[in-house]
Amino acid sequence: MLMPPQVGELPAQPHYLKIYHFYREHILLGTMPIGAKLPSIRALALHLGVSRNPVEEAYAHLVAEGYIVNKPKSGYWVASIPQLPSGLSPQSEEGTKATPITDSGRSGEHEVVVDFAYDRIRSGSFPIALWKKLTQHTLREAGPELFEYGDRKGELQLRRCIQAYVRQHRGVVCDSQQIIVTSGTQQSALMIGLLLRSDRRPLGAEAAMHPGLHRILEQQLQHGLVPVPLDEDGISCEALERLNTLYALCGVYVTPSHQFPYGSILPASKRARLLQWASDSGAWIIEDDYDSEFIYDGQPLPALQGMDRHGRVIYMGTFSKALAPALRLSYLVLPPELLARYEEEFRDYDGTASRVIQVTMARFMAEGLLDRHIRKMRSVYSLNRKRLLDAVACYMKGKANVSGAGSGLHARLSVQSLGLPTEELVKRGRLAGVGIRAVTDFHHAPAATSATFCEPQGEVEFVIGYGGLSGAQIEEGIRKLAEVWGM
Amino acid sequence: MLMPPQVGELPAQPHYLKIYHFYREHILLGTMPIGAKLPSIRALALHLGVSRNPVEEAYAHLVAEGYIVNKPKSGYWVASIPQLPSGLSPQSEEGTKATPITDSGRSGEHEVVVDFAYDRIRSGSFPIALWKKLTQHTLREAGPELFEYGDRKGELQLRRCIQAYVRQHRGVVCDSQQIIVTSGTQQSALMIGLLLRSDRRPLGAEAAMHPGLHRILEQQLQHGLVPVPLDEDGISCEALERLNTLYALCGVYVTPSHQFPYGSILPASKRARLLQWASDSGAWIIEDDYDSEFIYDGQPLPALQGMDRHGRVIYMGTFSKALAPALRLSYLVLPPELLARYEEEFRDYDGTASRVIQVTMARFMAEGLLDRHIRKMRSVYSLNRKRLLDAVACYMKGKANVSGAGSGLHARLSVQSLGLPTEELVKRGRLAGVGIRAVTDFHHAPAATSATFCEPQGEVEFVIGYGGLSGAQIEEGIRKLAEVWGM
Repeated sequence: MLMPPQVGELPAQPHYLKIYHFYREHILLGTMPIGAKLPSIRALALHLGVSRNPVEEAYAHLVAEGYIVNKPKSGYWVASIPQLPSGLSPQSEEGTKATPITDSGRSGEHEVVVDFAYDRIRSGSFPIALWKKLTQHTLREAGPELFEYGDRKGELQLRRCIQAYVRQHRGVVCDSQQIIVTSGTQQSALMIGLLLRSDRRPLGAEAAMHPGLHRILEQQLQHGLVPVPLDEDGISCEALERLNTLYALCGVYVTPSHQFPYGSILPASKRARLLQWASDSGAWIIEDDYDSEFIYDGQPLPALQGMDRHGRVIYMGTFSKALAPALRLSYLVLPPELLARYEEEFRDYDGTASRVIQVTMARFMAEGLLDRHIRKMRSVYSLNRKRLLDAVACYMKGKANVSGAGSGLHARLSVQSLGLPTEELVKRGRLAGVGIRAVTDFHHAPAATSATFCEPQGEVEFVIGYGGLSGAQIEEGIRKLAEVWGM
Repeated sequence: MLMPPQVGELPAQPHYLKIYHFYREHILLGTMPIGAKLPSIRALALHLGVSRNPVEEAYAHLVAEGYIVNKPKSGYWVASIPQLPSGLSPQSEEGTKATPITDSGRSGEHEVVVDFAYDRIRSGSFPIALWKKLTQHTLREAGPELFEYGDRKGELQLRRCIQAYVRQHRGVVCDSQQIIVTSGTQQSALMIGLLLRSDRRPLGAEAAMHPGLHRILEQQLQHGLVPVPLDEDGISCEALERLNTLYALCGVYVTPSHQFPYGSILPASKRARLLQWASDSGAWIIEDDYDSEFIYDGQPLPALQGMDRHGRVIYMGTFSKALAPALRLSYLVLPPELLARYEEEFRDYDGTASRVIQVTMARFMAEGLLDRHIRKMRSVYSLNRKRLLDAVACYMKGKANVSGAGSGLHARLSVQSLGLPTEELVKRGRLAGVGIRAVTDFHHAPAATSATFCEPQGEVEFVIGYGGLSGAQIEEGIRKLAEVWGM
C-alpha cells in the first residue's frame, strides 16, 4: 500500500495538504489506479507520526473533489474519475465564462481573464427558470395596487420571510416591524448614517473596510469616522475602548462574521466584550453580516444582534451574496430606539426596492428555494475555496498563504517579500490577465497610524475574491500570479 | 329613447355634467337597461339646443367610467356593468380602492375614502399584461450576467431610450453618458446633494416643495437650503438674485413645468432670466420635471435643460408618474462638469435600480409602449381634471377656485374664508372620509418670512391630487367637502 513519506521530509506545508497532494498526484499520474485502496486513517496517522486530524481532513478534501470514495465499514478507495486536462476541474463551465487569455497587442490593454474581485458571485448558478416562474406568478396575481407606492419599509410579506430567515440562520431576534428592506447594502448604510446623524458624534469603524460603505457613512455622519485598528482576529476591543474615551463614539461599524477585507471571524470573547462596551457607553454596533450564509468550517457564530440584550445592535443583511446583486435587495434590522427614530424621521421617504421583485423574493423564500439555493452554493463555494488553498500551496511554494477563508466569498493572500513593490505585483498580475487588489486599497486609517494593521513586516497582502470564478479559473489565476511574480 | 330635459331647467351646472348625471342616474336605477341605446350626439345636441361639445364630453366621461360603450358607426350603448353601491362608479376599482365610508365608532378614526393625495397615479391603468410579457421576454433572454452588479449609471440600453425620450418630449439635449438611472426621485436628489456637497454653499429652493426632497437636500448639503419666495407664476427671480448676493448660492431647485405644490408653470421670460442668472453666477439649476408628461392646455414649454447653453442645468425625470411608482425608476441628466465629478466621486457606488426592471423598461420604451401609455393616461387624467374643475364650480358655488391645473396630476384649490381655521377644514374633510392637505404643509420658509407666499389674505389653499381617483370619486369628494365646509 502506497504511503506518503514521513511528514518531516516534505517542504513546510500543512500536514493535511501534504497528504492530500501526495495522493492526488498519484491518482492523477495513475500510480494509484482506480479501485486502489488507501491506508486507514489510523494506520496512516501512526505511520506519519501525526494525529488523526490531518489525515481525516486530507481524505475529506479528496472525497469532496471526487478523487476518492468512502465506503462505510470498508475504507477509502480511488474513485473512477474522468480524465482532467491540465489539472482543470469539470466545474469550469458553471463559473464565469473562461475567455482565453489574449495578449491583445494594443499596448497597455490587457484583458483580465481571471478577476479575483471581492464582490462577485457565481451568477451562472442563479436559478433563472425558477425566478422567472415566480415572477410570472407575482405578475399574474398582482392587483393594480402593486404598481403604486408600497410600504416604505418594504412589503410586509417579504419582511416576515426575512424575519424567519435571520432568526433561523443567524439567531437574529426581531419583529417584522423592525425590518427595513433597502435596494442594496449601500442604501442600508445611507439610512444608518442618516439615523445616527443627530448624534453629532463620530462613528468608529474597522480601519479597513468596503470603500463604498466607508464613503457613505463618512458623508452622512456629521462627525465622520474614526478608524479602529484590527487585530488578527478582528477589531481591537482595546483600541475601540481607548478611542471611545478620546472621541465619545456614537457606535462602531463591524463585520464580525467575516471581516472585510481581512477575512477574520470575531471570536466569542470579543463579541461579548463589544456588546458590553456598547451597553456601557450607550453606543450602537452596526453589524454588517454580508456573507454569513457561507460558512465552511464548523458552526457559524450567531449574529451579535441575537446576543444583544440591550438593543444596541443594528443588523445589516443582503441578498446580493446569497442570491444575486442585480435584485438590489438588502435589509436592516433596527433596535427599538432607532426604529422610533426611523418612524419619525423617515416618514417622507419612499422605499427604494422594486415591489414586484420584493414580492417574488418573498415567494422564493416562502417556498424554501432560498435555503435550497444557499445549500447548493455553499458546496460550490466550498470547492472553490479548497481549490484556492490548494493552488496557493501548490504554486506559491510556501511563499504565500491564505487566511480568512473560513467563511464568505473572499480570503486574504499574504505574500512574502519578493523584493517588488505592491503596485508592481498588481501590475504584473494585470498584464498576465489576472485582476487582484491589495488589502491596503481598503485601509482608511490616516498614513501616520499604519501600526493600525496587523500585517507582519515585509509581507504584501491581497484580497482574493473567489465567488465569481470556477475552480479552474482560480487555479489558473494563482498559477499565473506565481509565474509572473517569479515564485 | 330617453332624453334629458332641456338644460335650462336644471340647477346651474356645466351642460355636460347635467347630461352625464341624467344618464348615469338612469343607468344606475336601471331605467336605462344594459344594451339600451343613447341618442346620437347630433340628435341630443339638437334636442337640448346646445352645441355638440357638451354632449361629446358627457359621453366621454360615461365611456371613461364604464357606463356606456361606443360602437363605431353604430353609436353609444349602455354597458354591461355590475350593480354599484352608493353612487360610486365601476371605475372605482381601477382607482384607489373605494371602501365604503364607515364611521367606525372608535373616536378619531375615520376611513378616508376619497384621498386627494398628491402622489397617486391611476394604478389600475398600469398595463400589467404587457409588462408581464416584456418581463418574461427579459428573463427568457437573460444570461447569467444580468444577475451580477450592473453599470452603476444604469443599463446602457435604458439610458439610450431615456435619451431619445427626453429629447423628443422635453427638448432635453444630452448624451446617454450624462444619464444616471436611479431608484426614485429621492435617490436622484440624494445624488445631487452629494455632488453639490463639496461646493460648501447653500442651495436655493422654492419656498414650498416636496417634503421628502427638501429633507434629503437639506441633509446632504453642508450649508442647507435657502427658501426662495414664489410668485403666482413660480419662483421669484428677483428674490433669488437678492438672496444670492446674501448667501452666494451654489444653485437653485425649481419645478418649472408644474410648481409643486402650487401648480404654476414658469413663463418663458422667467426661464431665460433663471438661466442667465445661473450662467452669470456659476450656479446650478436643479430642474425637477416630475410630471411634465401630462400637459392639458396647449403646447408644453421645453425643459430648461434644452434652453441652457452653458451646462448649468441638472435635469431630474421619473417614471413614477408616467408609468408607476412601484417600478422605482427615475433618472438624472448631469451637465458635463458634474458628470466629471460623478465619475470621480461615485466610483465606489453601486446602482440602486433592479436590472431586470431596467431592461424591461428599455424594451417597453423601445416598442413605443410608453408613448402609447402616456397618450392614454393623458386623456384619462384630462377627464379627471375637467371633473375636478366642474365639481368645484358646481358644488362650491363660487366660494372656491382651482388653479395650477394646466398640467400634471395635482392642482391648487383656493377657498374663500369660511371663518374656520385650516386645520378644522382638513379635519372635517377627514371625518367625512375625504383626505386633503393644506398647501402650508409644504412651506419650508421660516415663520418670520410668511410674505414668501402668494396667497391672498384670508384664503385657504389646498393641494388636490387627482391622479389616483376616478371621476366619480373626485366629484363625490368635492361634493362632500362643500357639504361639511357648509358652502
